[in-house]
Amino acid sequence: MSLLVVGSIALDSIFTPFGETADALGGSAVYFSVAGSLLHPVQVVGVVGNDYPVAELDRLAVRGIDWSGVERADGESFRWKGKYSYDLQSRETLETRLGVFAHFQPKIPPSFRSAKFVFLGNIDPELQHGVLEQVTEPSLVVCDTMNYWIQSKKAALMALLGRVDVLMVNDTEARELSGDWNIHRAGRWILQHGPSRVVIKQGEHGALLIERTRTFYVPAFPLENVFDPTGAGDAFAGGFMAYLARKGSVSDDDLRRAMVVGATMGSYAVEQFGIRGFDEVTLRDVNHRIHAFEDLTHVSLAEALT
Amino acid sequence: MSLLVVGSIALDSIFTPFGETADALGGSAVYFSVAGSLLHPVQVVGVVGNDYPVAELDRLAVRGIDWSGVERADGESFRWKGKYSYDLQSRETLETRLGVFAHFQPKIPPSFRSAKFVFLGNIDPELQHGVLEQVTEPSLVVCDTMNYWIQSKKAALMALLGRVDVLMVNDTEARELSGDWNIHRAGRWILQHGPSRVVIKQGEHGALLIERTRTFYVPAFPLENVFDPTGAGDAFAGGFMAYLARKGSVSDDDLRRAMVVGATMGSYAVEQFGIRGFDEVTLRDVNHRIHAFEDLTHVSLAEALT
Repeated sequence: MSLLVVGSIALDSIFTPFGETADALGGSAVYFSVAGSLLHPVQVVGVVGNDYPVAELDRLAVRGIDWSGVERADGESFRWKGKYSYDLQSRETLETRLGVFAHFQPKIPPSFRSAKFVFLGNIDPELQHGVLEQVTEPSLVVCDTMNYWIQSKKAALMALLGRVDVLMVNDTEARELSGDWNIHRAGRWILQHGPSRVVIKQGEHGALLIERTRTFYVPAFPLENVFDPTGAGDAFAGGFMAYLARKGSVSDDDLRRAMVVGATMGSYAVEQFGIRGFDEVTLRDVNHRIHAFEDLTHVSLAEALT
Repeated sequence: MSLLVVGSIALDSIFTPFGETADALGGSAVYFSVAGSLLHPVQVVGVVGNDYPVAELDRLAVRGIDWSGVERADGESFRWKGKYSYDLQSRETLETRLGVFAHFQPKIPPSFRSAKFVFLGNIDPELQHGVLEQVTEPSLVVCDTMNYWIQSKKAALMALLGRVDVLMVNDTEARELSGDWNIHRAGRWILQHGPSRVVIKQGEHGALLIERTRTFYVPAFPLENVFDPTGAGDAFAGGFMAYLARKGSVSDDDLRRAMVVGATMGSYAVEQFGIRGFDEVTLRDVNHRIHAFEDLTHVSLAEALT
């Protein structure tokens, strides 16, 4: 049950109250695959410029990340520079240089086209359509987007909603897309436009899985030390998708478990700068943290009011 | 196992994007007791002016609210006027007239002094101390506070923390009191200053019960229609305390169940203006909504990663 991600591969320069990094590995496809590969091999399609430290990507290949779908184009790699507020609640983009990403046209290698689990990272919705035309028979397609595409490519995005199983966005994006500030109505609106499920990420508060007749809530893992929120949403997606690919399942129960795995991966992402939070994480650690969610939410209500 | 609340009894004028009310019954003791009395009788200590519509309080007495500890003082009742933003995420206080509340000195009637469950609503910490000097042997003392007291009566508030079992505040208050923006560290800080437990209310996101070695998270009940957030926190407290008083228990399991009951009562509070959300609610409704939390958070993790 192969797992494919198409997204950005970037060099991030991040300023937080706790320190800074320059030109560190980042981008949605990188966070997704570093998190996901703890559970299942990941096939990546993206683009880098000829200045990208590909040796660093190669080092990550041993984790089970197949970078063979990453194109090397002539020009500068995608760079993002951002600064977080003292409480990490907001961030300001200082600079975005798209470089070779500006002309990215995802080409899915023949060996990746039969992927059963497909994650469309946050790229131009027209390119997301292009990916769907190249994959043959996916079991589950999940897509992300952002405010920029909601504003500039609304029609393509709305058409895309009719072709995906799950839209996975953060609360601001869900509100902007639906035009409704109530997060549950926003989720309902999205379901009416195609996907059978919507995942709404709420940062430090957790995430919602909204389905036609049910809603599931997973809190964020309680962390006393958060260093860098960058990539938490993509790490969540990586954990979510890799768990389902590993199980080869899209059952209701496995989707809920995938939400917990996603929240677990999001928690590792924010504990260190960039992807460093995953450096030492083992499957055993993941399992341990997943089970900590049981105590965090467990309550027996069978005889609550008798 | 009697339940006592000491707090404000106010007349609220509230503007929301969905309508407005003028001089409606409000205040912490009113929200607390209207919610709590669905589960257990409530004894109230407070003060009203000679302009208060006491007939409306009397009508609520049939629910099991004992208003005999409410003093009628000569002067104007406490009035609060506020306006919510379009998305109900923030509010502006337009006017506060303390009236007789400015000189409130809680006098606990002899028949209330043996209360086992005591809730100190958000009033001057010195008055909260005064209440504790009048109750004889409470099993559980829970107190609320607000930014105003954190700034103006810090010493009295810190001394109070050493005398209560649970501090129940919202996330902004926890951050301001501890001087720490990380909510889990803020909770830890509070535990180091007295209470064995802290409940941190996070509005539409839910609430945390932080104990020395465990944390419990209850999400907010998913509501597609929210009309007026006023009083949700006090209704939460009323449900929380009344559940424990009803069970006569402060066990770990019952405290978690009490969090769910609190979240349930908070959800009724916000569905209508003022206390109207409770008008038609029955114990059967409460039970039904409590059980809806099971599906909202249930996930089986026993064999998540095998």
